[in-house]
Amino acid sequence: MHNYSPGRRFRAGILGHSGFSGAELAALLGKHPAVTPVLLDHRKAEGTASESRPHAGSESASNPLERFAWSPTVVTEQKLDVVFTATPPEVSMEVVPEIRAQEARAIDLSGAFRLPAEQYARWYGAEHRHPELLPQAVYGLPELYRERIRATCIVANPGCYPTAAICALWPLLEQDWVDRAAGIVCDAKSGVTGAGKAPSPQTHFVQVSENFSAYAIRKHRHVPEVLNSLRLQDDEFDFTAHLLPIQRGILATHYVRLRRAAELKEVLDLYRSAYRDSPFMRLYPAGSFPQVSAVQRTNFCDIHCTLGGDGKRLIVVSCIDNLVKGAAGQAIQNMNLMLGLEETAGLL
Amino acid sequence: MHNYSPGRRFRAGILGHSGFSGAELAALLGKHPAVTPVLLDHRKAEGTASESRPHAGSESASNPLERFAWSPTVVTEQKLDVVFTATPPEVSMEVVPEIRAQEARAIDLSGAFRLPAEQYARWYGAEHRHPELLPQAVYGLPELYRERIRATCIVANPGCYPTAAICALWPLLEQDWVDRAAGIVCDAKSGVTGAGKAPSPQTHFVQVSENFSAYAIRKHRHVPEVLNSLRLQDDEFDFTAHLLPIQRGILATHYVRLRRAAELKEVLDLYRSAYRDSPFMRLYPAGSFPQVSAVQRTNFCDIHCTLGGDGKRLIVVSCIDNLVKGAAGQAIQNMNLMLGLEETAGLL
Amino acid sequence: MHNYSPGRRFRAGILGHSGFSGAELAALLGKHPAVTPVLLDHRKAEGTASESRPHAGSESASNPLERFAWSPTVVTEQKLDVVFTATPPEVSMEVVPEIRAQEARAIDLSGAFRLPAEQYARWYGAEHRHPELLPQAVYGLPELYRERIRATCIVANPGCYPTAAICALWPLLEQDWVDRAAGIVCDAKSGVTGAGKAPSPQTHFVQVSENFSAYAIRKHRHVPEVLNSLRLQDDEFDFTAHLLPIQRGILATHYVRLRRAAELKEVLDLYRSAYRDSPFMRLYPAGSFPQVSAVQRTNFCDIHCTLGGDGKRLIVVSCIDNLVKGAAGQAIQNMNLMLGLEETAGLL
Amino acid sequence: MHNYSPGRRFRAGILGHSGFSGAELAALLGKHPAVTPVLLDHRKAEGTASESRPHAGSESASNPLERFAWSPTVVTEQKLDVVFTATPPEVSMEVVPEIRAQEARAIDLSGAFRLPAEQYARWYGAEHRHPELLPQAVYGLPELYRERIRATCIVANPGCYPTAAICALWPLLEQDWVDRAAGIVCDAKSGVTGAGKAPSPQTHFVQVSENFSAYAIRKHRHVPEVLNSLRLQDDEFDFTAHLLPIQRGILATHYVRLRRAAELKEVLDLYRSAYRDSPFMRLYPAGSFPQVSAVQRTNFCDIHCTLGGDGKRLIVVSCIDNLVKGAAGQAIQNMNLMLGLEETAGLL
Repeated sequence: MHNYSPGRRFRAGILGHSGFSGAELAALLGKHPAVTPVLLDHRKAEGTASESRPHAGSESASNPLERFAWSPTVVTEQKLDVVFTATPPEVSMEVVPEIRAQEARAIDLSGAFRLPAEQYARWYGAEHRHPELLPQAVYGLPELYRERIRATCIVANPGCYPTAAICALWPLLEQDWVDRAAGIVCDAKSGVTGAGKAPSPQTHFVQVSENFSAYAIRKHRHVPEVLNSLRLQDDEFDFTAHLLPIQRGILATHYVRLRRAAELKEVLDLYRSAYRDSPFMRLYPAGSFPQVSAVQRTNFCDIHCTLGGDGKRLIVVSCIDNLVKGAAGQAIQNMNLMLGLEETAGLL
Repeated sequence: MHNYSPGRRFRAGILGHSGFSGAELAALLGKHPAVTPVLLDHRKAEGTASESRPHAGSESASNPLERFAWSPTVVTEQKLDVVFTATPPEVSMEVVPEIRAQEARAIDLSGAFRLPAEQYARWYGAEHRHPELLPQAVYGLPELYRERIRATCIVANPGCYPTAAICALWPLLEQDWVDRAAGIVCDAKSGVTGAGKAPSPQTHFVQVSENFSAYAIRKHRHVPEVLNSLRLQDDEFDFTAHLLPIQRGILATHYVRLRRAAELKEVLDLYRSAYRDSPFMRLYPAGSFPQVSAVQRTNFCDIHCTLGGDGKRLIVVSCIDNLVKGAAGQAIQNMNLMLGLEETAGLL
Repeated sequence: MHNYSPGRRFRAGILGHSGFSGAELAALLGKHPAVTPVLLDHRKAEGTASESRPHAGSESASNPLERFAWSPTVVTEQKLDVVFTATPPEVSMEVVPEIRAQEARAIDLSGAFRLPAEQYARWYGAEHRHPELLPQAVYGLPELYRERIRATCIVANPGCYPTAAICALWPLLEQDWVDRAAGIVCDAKSGVTGAGKAPSPQTHFVQVSENFSAYAIRKHRHVPEVLNSLRLQDDEFDFTAHLLPIQRGILATHYVRLRRAAELKEVLDLYRSAYRDSPFMRLYPAGSFPQVSAVQRTNFCDIHCTLGGDGKRLIVVSCIDNLVKGAAGQAIQNMNLMLGLEETAGLL
Repeated sequence: MHNYSPGRRFRAGILGHSGFSGAELAALLGKHPAVTPVLLDHRKAEGTASESRPHAGSESASNPLERFAWSPTVVTEQKLDVVFTATPPEVSMEVVPEIRAQEARAIDLSGAFRLPAEQYARWYGAEHRHPELLPQAVYGLPELYRERIRATCIVANPGCYPTAAICALWPLLEQDWVDRAAGIVCDAKSGVTGAGKAPSPQTHFVQVSENFSAYAIRKHRHVPEVLNSLRLQDDEFDFTAHLLPIQRGILATHYVRLRRAAELKEVLDLYRSAYRDSPFMRLYPAGSFPQVSAVQRTNFCDIHCTLGGDGKRLIVVSCIDNLVKGAAGQAIQNMNLMLGLEETAGLL
């Protein structure tokens, strides 16, 4: 079933490389041992964001990637095995069918293929234009759906908040440890790259620095992804997003009631067992304290558990880098699975 | 019962003025229309913290406060009406009886007089040395205990986290709107001044900036203050503290289940009614988003409510400045009540 | 010559109150003991900047200022003694003549009235539309031009960088201590509020935080103000602007060669003498180190001098808050002089 | 003269790996294609700094380095080809002779071997205990001393400020373009990692954030390194250090007078020629603006030149990452040269 022969190099296109996620993808793929990335310029996708932080502002910029204008035929011409679309959902919806028509795999980092058509319409405010592709799209969270990702040609790469929330809660829910009636809380905090590169009053330095705010309380469009993956009802899940004055990183604090009293060791064993084949999940030891600096610029998702005195109240903290495990790194992890490469290739 | 005659000026001593709270107290009291502050130097209290940010580093520093060495008799000699103790609890325990022996009022910003003796011993790791004074000490949260504060001579000024949590939850609990069995969550985030001025690996710039962490999960010594004021059982309240890479400000996000479905208007009316006589409580309108910048350098506590679709899931966000409403400003608010002054004097 | 009778209140209009300088002006004037500010809404001036940091986001916002639509007659209708224009230069050029026609004083915070007409055209890229008013406009640096400011009806409030540079260099140049042939260096660093409130790629949090950059090297439009005030030739002055990842504050480091060797004490005496009547100039003692935190939210300009071993090489560091002494505070200082009030009124 | 045979791996010890430079060295060397690093624990060196930011706070920390207690014989036992000493100078002075006695190469990141004995005593406040080794030590700036570094067994790795200053000024001085009598200014700004990991009032988050300060004006112990490399007299060079509220990066702005008027193209050609064999030097094009984000986490030194209207006034901005080109990266660059490896190995 492996289609990887040693020495073979794959070619990957990146559409939407001027935003934070796309630029991170280009940087990470540039170091991948088995994949050569090329940049694809899409008129609509690149027009919106300017180069705010030119990391290669110098004459002798080292080793830039090849770059081509996007057209549906560029996939075949450039022999691309896979194309990443780090584009707004309305652009992704348009180009993913074109990528598939050229028989390349597609990994979409927008919300275009994450939800059933009717949910999409409700949360993204527009009809889905290719609902016929939705059944083929697999939600790209390898820790839950590894085998299905290996077999698919369209991956809907998860949102950053859902990655943090689902990884924190899934082992508990999958084993039915949670008292759902008491409600599950996800209090999530994200760095500013999560808000995108377009300048706005909300991302102005003077607004963000020395400040901290809550936003989109209960109304974030990432919520339905979490409900779908965890099979939760809307009234079982409370979600609040907060904006941190940092560049990258998400820390999410979850509060659940267990159905029966447990020991911390049992809880940790549950997580260890659930993630025994997941190389990017790490469990904090008791006594440590979780922090985003431990995962910044990595594809790791760190988990920290604290159990209350009665053994029924559990706090689970998860940390990821929103641009890596929450976007570009996870997209590469999915690509590795789809191409039959080592899951961790280019990510350690 | 008022002891304020127009034109009379009061004199206030500040013991422990080199820490963040004490320095804030000196700065705020320096502008008070009816009170003259003087600094009191206590050997143990001042020895620990150095002057890390000398705001008056220049030759012609404007108008410094008078300064005296602490001794029990300085209270009488300097005709002090009130003494603030922004000192470690073990120092406060020692000097508050001396202040009272000189017949001045005492407002203690440490945890020394906030808890019953047995709780104090458990959370602060030492026996209380003057348990006989505890019955006289009033917990200095004017929004709950205004009349008792007016009548007392010892105020235990609340902790910063408890101020944010109690102000957010008290109207709901007092009117018995909360389903306590489902648990109450307080997810609190604080700026670095809350961690104190002593240099440590945890407060090093390189550790804090571009980082965010959870700490003291469920074990913070501020928790029993909250439980006592809100008459909650330990297993009804989940508290997590987080460290924000900002200087000042607390934002706390609370999750509660209501006993019966409500409309948002009813909830807001409940808060308006509960705080109708409280000049520092402000309620956000629907559609706004709460942020610490709105309260920094003020004595306000801002409250924001969001009600879930079923009308039973309520998220309450509260914001304060940890050094003002969470420490020095609240101490002055308490002083104003004790001296028969306008509650807002020197604080608007 | 004083037109101030005790008890009389003056009325001041603020045109352009949504930018950083205008908002600071409104906040500072709101506390002025002798002046009542009102906000004036100008279509062009307010249309560009949105309310990025609503400091009064709450229902019971304390005590907002009165607000009127701008029209030339509003000055007379509202009995305004003075109008501040914190507007773009092209707007200031249009409204200052209208303000003068209504016989109110005008204090302009833009660059519209700081330069002779031909310099204005060169540096601001447009012809000056009211050059006939330029001879009446006094450059509003009280430390140099106090008496002329008292006597004028139009003040051109200085730029933030020029305030820092001129205050640092003027005593040396005025007494002819400087070897101009060796060149004078001003290496200036400013916080982000100096770049204005309009969102742009350059002010995005992710661009600014954890970064530091040089810009407008030798080409800043603030340079001619400095040359004019200090009577320097263009080739005698090197200026570089840098962007600091902080909100407010300027620190400028100046390097000059003295014509003859001096002692540090002589240098400090020179500054003391030059600024003996200037209440906002402060001199650092030897051994201290200059920092912007010492002047933030104040109208002070701090000066620090270090003399090289040969007694001829002098480094002068000046620090101001760019929004206060570099804009709104200085504008109020000028207003105080124009209205015959105490120079420090509302500024300590 | 090359002692590198393909496939051979070298072994490198790191003494002093708990500070910022040593930890960076361990992280970078861990990815080097031809070198295996091991950590060496020195009692004095490790005792002072605690683990403030545990980047591997999790159970399944990936791939830690081997670790041994330091003793002089460990060099031979562990077959170390080279030992890095990122230790305080007094420790470096003691262990470098022991490393040499075991016939390994030594690369010292402290100031212990950068200056002649009498200068060392003056600037470091203690006698040098092994002056006999100083003639063997080569100042490890490959852009100037590449061939001497290839041939030596002791490298004195340069300070971070001197690296930025010397790289910016050397081509001009070497070709005698500079009017030294007018003085050369280096106005340098550094992130907080340059101040070391030990907690202190100066590195407390609340002191550093939203602040900017000048320190060690004209008295920095890095100055003599610059003078020695550039053959400048003390009174020809003005240096000021400033502390930036960022973690890593140095931007230094230099002001020089040229002896004769030049065109910008000539100046850029001078730099291109001087650094034609230096893979880590990059020249900014005209119209760009220099910023530390372009070099963070790289070994590049970026140079930006601006020439004044008269063609004689030149501003040169240089940017480096103080922990990479200013410390650990440059140390590896030196190691590569000493071991006959590609100069860029492990650094791109």
